Amino acid sequence: MDDNAIRLAVSTVIVALRPHPDTGVPALWMPLVRRVTEPYEGSWALPGGWVGADEGLDDSAAARLRETTKVQPRYLEQLYAFGAVDRSPTRVVSVVYWALVHPDEASVVPDDWNVRWFLADEHPPLAFDHDRIVEYALWRLRNKMSYSRIAQAFLGDRFTLAELRGVYEAVLGQTLDPANFRRQVAQSDAVLPTDETTSGGRHRPARLYRSNPDLSYADNGPLTTP
Amino acid sequence: MDDNAIRLAVSTVIVALRPHPDTGVPALWMPLVRRVTEPYEGSWALPGGWVGADEGLDDSAAARLRETTKVQPRYLEQLYAFGAVDRSPTRVVSVVYWALVHPDEASVVPDDWNVRWFLADEHPPLAFDHDRIVEYALWRLRNKMSYSRIAQAFLGDRFTLAELRGVYEAVLGQTLDPANFRRQVAQSDAVLPTDETTSGGRHRPARLYRSNPDLSYADNGPLTTP
Repeated sequence: MDDNAIRLAVSTVIVALRPHPDTGVPALWMPLVRRVTEPYEGSWALPGGWVGADEGLDDSAAARLRETTKVQPRYLEQLYAFGAVDRSPTRVVSVVYWALVHPDEASVVPDDWNVRWFLADEHPPLAFDHDRIVEYALWRLRNKMSYSRIAQAFLGDRFTLAELRGVYEAVLGQTLDPANFRRQVAQSDAVLPTDETTSGGRHRPARLYRSNPDLSYADNGPLTTP
Repeated sequence: MDDNAIRLAVSTVIVALRPHPDTGVPALWMPLVRRVTEPYEGSWALPGGWVGADEGLDDSAAARLRETTKVQPRYLEQLYAFGAVDRSPTRVVSVVYWALVHPDEASVVPDDWNVRWFLADEHPPLAFDHDRIVEYALWRLRNKMSYSRIAQAFLGDRFTLAELRGVYEAVLGQTLDPANFRRQVAQSDAVLPTDETTSGGRHRPARLYRSNPDLSYADNGPLTTP
């Protein structure tokens, strides 16, 4: 029975939207954690850690994320279990989650020697198989944007249509026609207009929208926790 | 470090299309395995077993499935890792796969005291949290039918459009209009007509189709093995 000397870890790919340093346009960023022990000491890695014997997987992912980055995301979803025999010097299976965080949630991440934000497409080589995990997470995110309301997870309670379009443009890596985008959103019930507008400043006030509370971000089926 | 006394298992939800005993119409069936040890001795459960220390997760799922049911599916995909603390008397995390098998693959499953086919919607109460796992797998299957070519995994190399429609009807639990279905298939590039037809018998010969080899069943992204 105990040929089962496999240790179980959780890791989380967190993504948030922040301005690109060159263009100012919203872009996808990820916080990464610097490893302070071997293996891969000094390398950057996804935030994570061991699953406690008395912790469920979801709770464990949330706890390790909070401990390493302080983030407590609204949207934390299991992505995939990575278990190749050679992915670590000892045998470790990692259940990987992803978290899409809006600006308020993202702001608690310390940006220091141990934890740092990187552009999702320009991060340094990561420890273990984390490069492959990030590649898969970004692919899944792009894919899922087309058939779920996941884009709203990046935004706060109120947002303009331009901000929502900015999410799609950042994730998909292409610009979208504003009029077409407005028409498609109006035809769906994913977001609802409010009576509020932006306060203006240099720009004309823009209508603020909110998520439709009757719809969840992603159709996680019978596993969705209420 | 060794608060990590968690054992790792794999289980697989296998689904195949077989005639419903009352109506003869194709329906979803699952082979289940009878447990011969405690806990849940005598109960039906998903086929599976422990992950070997030198086995990757995919290899382990395939091996445990072959050992318990003899099935070696073309389509075996990781579904979800189930890890609630109380899902088993001892702490076990199960990485669950699903296999969609076509009639030739399904025919090797022995139908005896230890292994038996059940209608997916009418199976007996299962061991552990396997009822919930099956519910989730069937939900994911229905969902995935709408945005992938996964239906073809249930069929052999050649199939008629009526057979393909039968897959959708069995999985979605509703009848589809044959003319509309034909039109939708013709507009997509998911299946290609061949020069062959069914041999007839009582019926008019029907055109045989095949999967488009340039497309995979499901978009598994960077994790797809070639």
